[in-house]
Amino acid sequence: MRIRPLVRLSFSCSRRMSGDRPASSAVKPSNVATQYQEQLFDSAAKGNVEHVLTLLKAVDVDAKNDRGWTALMFAARNGQVSVIKSLLEQGSSVNILNSSGQTALDIANFWNHSDASSALSDSTVVPTQECRNYYSVNPLNRASDRRKHPEWIDQAVKRDNTKFIVFSDLNPFLKQDPSVTSRKSKYILCLFSYKQLAEHIAKKPLLIFLGLETWDSESAVWFAVDVTGYEESKLKDVHNDGFFANPFPLTMQMDERHAGIFAEARSILTWHDRYSFCATCGSPTVVREAGYKRVCDNADCRSHKGIHNTCYPRVDPSLIMLVVSPDASRCLLGRKKSFPPKMFSCLAGFMEPGECIEDTCRREVEEESGIQVGRVEYHSSQPWPFPAVLMLGCITHAKTETIKLDNDDELEAAQWFTRPEVVQMITHQHPDGLFLPPKQAIAHQLIRTWVGNTSNL
Amino acid sequence: MRIRPLVRLSFSCSRRMSGDRPASSAVKPSNVATQYQEQLFDSAAKGNVEHVLTLLKAVDVDAKNDRGWTALMFAARNGQVSVIKSLLEQGSSVNILNSSGQTALDIANFWNHSDASSALSDSTVVPTQECRNYYSVNPLNRASDRRKHPEWIDQAVKRDNTKFIVFSDLNPFLKQDPSVTSRKSKYILCLFSYKQLAEHIAKKPLLIFLGLETWDSESAVWFAVDVTGYEESKLKDVHNDGFFANPFPLTMQMDERHAGIFAEARSILTWHDRYSFCATCGSPTVVREAGYKRVCDNADCRSHKGIHNTCYPRVDPSLIMLVVSPDASRCLLGRKKSFPPKMFSCLAGFMEPGECIEDTCRREVEEESGIQVGRVEYHSSQPWPFPAVLMLGCITHAKTETIKLDNDDELEAAQWFTRPEVVQMITHQHPDGLFLPPKQAIAHQLIRTWVGNTSNL
Repeated sequence: MRIRPLVRLSFSCSRRMSGDRPASSAVKPSNVATQYQEQLFDSAAKGNVEHVLTLLKAVDVDAKNDRGWTALMFAARNGQVSVIKSLLEQGSSVNILNSSGQTALDIANFWNHSDASSALSDSTVVPTQECRNYYSVNPLNRASDRRKHPEWIDQAVKRDNTKFIVFSDLNPFLKQDPSVTSRKSKYILCLFSYKQLAEHIAKKPLLIFLGLETWDSESAVWFAVDVTGYEESKLKDVHNDGFFANPFPLTMQMDERHAGIFAEARSILTWHDRYSFCATCGSPTVVREAGYKRVCDNADCRSHKGIHNTCYPRVDPSLIMLVVSPDASRCLLGRKKSFPPKMFSCLAGFMEPGECIEDTCRREVEEESGIQVGRVEYHSSQPWPFPAVLMLGCITHAKTETIKLDNDDELEAAQWFTRPEVVQMITHQHPDGLFLPPKQAIAHQLIRTWVGNTSNL
Repeated sequence: MRIRPLVRLSFSCSRRMSGDRPASSAVKPSNVATQYQEQLFDSAAKGNVEHVLTLLKAVDVDAKNDRGWTALMFAARNGQVSVIKSLLEQGSSVNILNSSGQTALDIANFWNHSDASSALSDSTVVPTQECRNYYSVNPLNRASDRRKHPEWIDQAVKRDNTKFIVFSDLNPFLKQDPSVTSRKSKYILCLFSYKQLAEHIAKKPLLIFLGLETWDSESAVWFAVDVTGYEESKLKDVHNDGFFANPFPLTMQMDERHAGIFAEARSILTWHDRYSFCATCGSPTVVREAGYKRVCDNADCRSHKGIHNTCYPRVDPSLIMLVVSPDASRCLLGRKKSFPPKMFSCLAGFMEPGECIEDTCRREVEEESGIQVGRVEYHSSQPWPFPAVLMLGCITHAKTETIKLDNDDELEAAQWFTRPEVVQMITHQHPDGLFLPPKQAIAHQLIRTWVGNTSNL
């Protein structure tokens, strides 16, 4: 790679924003990498696409100077549309804030570079990297083919290295993670062996095959067991610090992998709790396939042929969306009556039969806020085990701005928030004490994607 | 906009592929637009990013010459990586085939431009424009707030301009669209007025409020009515060419908007057909909210408080994915035992409780084919009203190539297909008679996205 000698950039403008010098005198180019970075900023400011692309082989596309400026910001500062487009194509984030709290778009707007502004606001806000939401990081291999082999399941239950997690009235038995010493408690699932639960398992409780360990060559098997009615003291004989936890919001403070396993188990157990009769004929149902199926006990029931989704666990798809204002400067957040005071979040709603994701998003936003939205971008999904919701997270672009709340609706407030306000809400520094859901909620991730994944938040 | 004078491009290469001349002598530049187009091809071939971007203000990014070559192909032909990246960022499709059946990637590979090849194969195959799948184009406003006002519903039923569609044993009453005279029959829903059905409606049949017309200022109301047991001759008195249609596959040949309304109605009616008892206690349930809710008749049932998703229509989220080979040259298609002979399609499977989309995709592909996949890109979704599935369409990228079928599985075959073979399957020209699902299926759209949305297919 040929690199041109370091060239200083001088602005002819009299208006100057702090930090907009590519080679800040505060940072000495201590090595070649820093030189390349300064050349990247220089080339971006000057509009040299070819040179920018070459330098990106050596410099991170979102590298910052000491004032938090990225190459995209330098290109925005000087209205270099071609460079902006190339940087965006290279994965540069439009959402990064510099030390003054400005995005590249803010900078382009300030300097009246309208072409640059539109290139920046047109660009998708959805990241190309996969967002792994909380409750979705389940490290087990579900090995669903084994469910159909009851003899294999029976043997697996009795293996020495098989692990059991237990629930009473749908509450998991947890304990504090002894390896975590930070302020915030982290909880883990209490694990039991067959021997420790043999007396209870002999009574044929509800037993769910969760999957196989993927992090160990022995592929130990995991089960969830309903221990409702079993003496808690016997569990405490094994884990003296264990306790049955109210799952929400306590399971939001779990080890992430255990939270994923909890989500699988809790969703299935809740289904068994509420779906023990056949919806087609009203007869009792019996458990099959290691907890993943319930079959009607009535041999004449229609559910034995044709449509029989009644037999399988239910998952309810729902949409959750961050609505971005037409000028991309604000986002729409709302408050359900059931929220904690001063918390705002994304709008959300269940999908209906016969809908596609994009239409549910448009319908829900219009029903709840009166806002009409156009383009819908899928962001990520999150299993929400209360009881078994699939949250489909989207970012969507408003075509209108006037909010009109539906009085019958569960939403008691909805309003547009600017980026700086949202940053205050994320960092718990909002003057009115407004705040957002925690990072474990997909709503938080959608909002953070829009605000920018800056490390200082 | 300044446009440079038309410049002819001459290749110094002795190897020449047919059609790779920017200004083909077969097409005379009859107007300015054609001149711009030729200049675009010229600039793309020469690597002039700035000029390419300027010309794209006047020329479609995927404009073709007489041999089907696009600007991206000219850039690929000459290894112009910066132009390739800029064109991709401008929405140029990597999937277009020229008259010789080659993509831009094929051309870059042929000419050994490895950087260009990797830029082209890295690029996402998911289109930025929204794909509207069949069964999802429902033009009604569901106006879900009205469902909770039974007095409004009762009045709406009796309005002169209210429209009713009818089903018997879940089969819709259709007729041929008189406005369609093409070979392929198109069907539409037979519409009835209140007066035409008053005798039947007086008996309180199952009545579903579908929504309001959005294409007319009067916002006429639509309902679906179950007419099972009603005399068909009375319906034929109104529509003498009407008939109760077996919905699959006949509703795949409907007017697209009527297919969307059918999908809403059929999904809800099937739910009522299979969910007339309370899953929590086994008691009968009664219809509420204009057909969108069923409530347990037993006042002591737990379904009246807390978790009560038992009361709402069920939608089953499922994944359908096109798996692209590690070198991006082939895709994986499979055959279920239940498919028509010689039909191949995408792999698919239901989501499980506690899963996110990306993990379902990885699990299903590995379970069904033994292939491990990495990146998962959401493409579009489709409501599939048999009975009420939400198909989530993804394109995913394989990390391995060795296929291993599960003997217990419903898949009887799976294999890698090259792009030319898939084109033969789409166009019903495959030497072995292999073919794909029709364009109404999301599987077809996923495959078409990968092959390229060329108009000649």
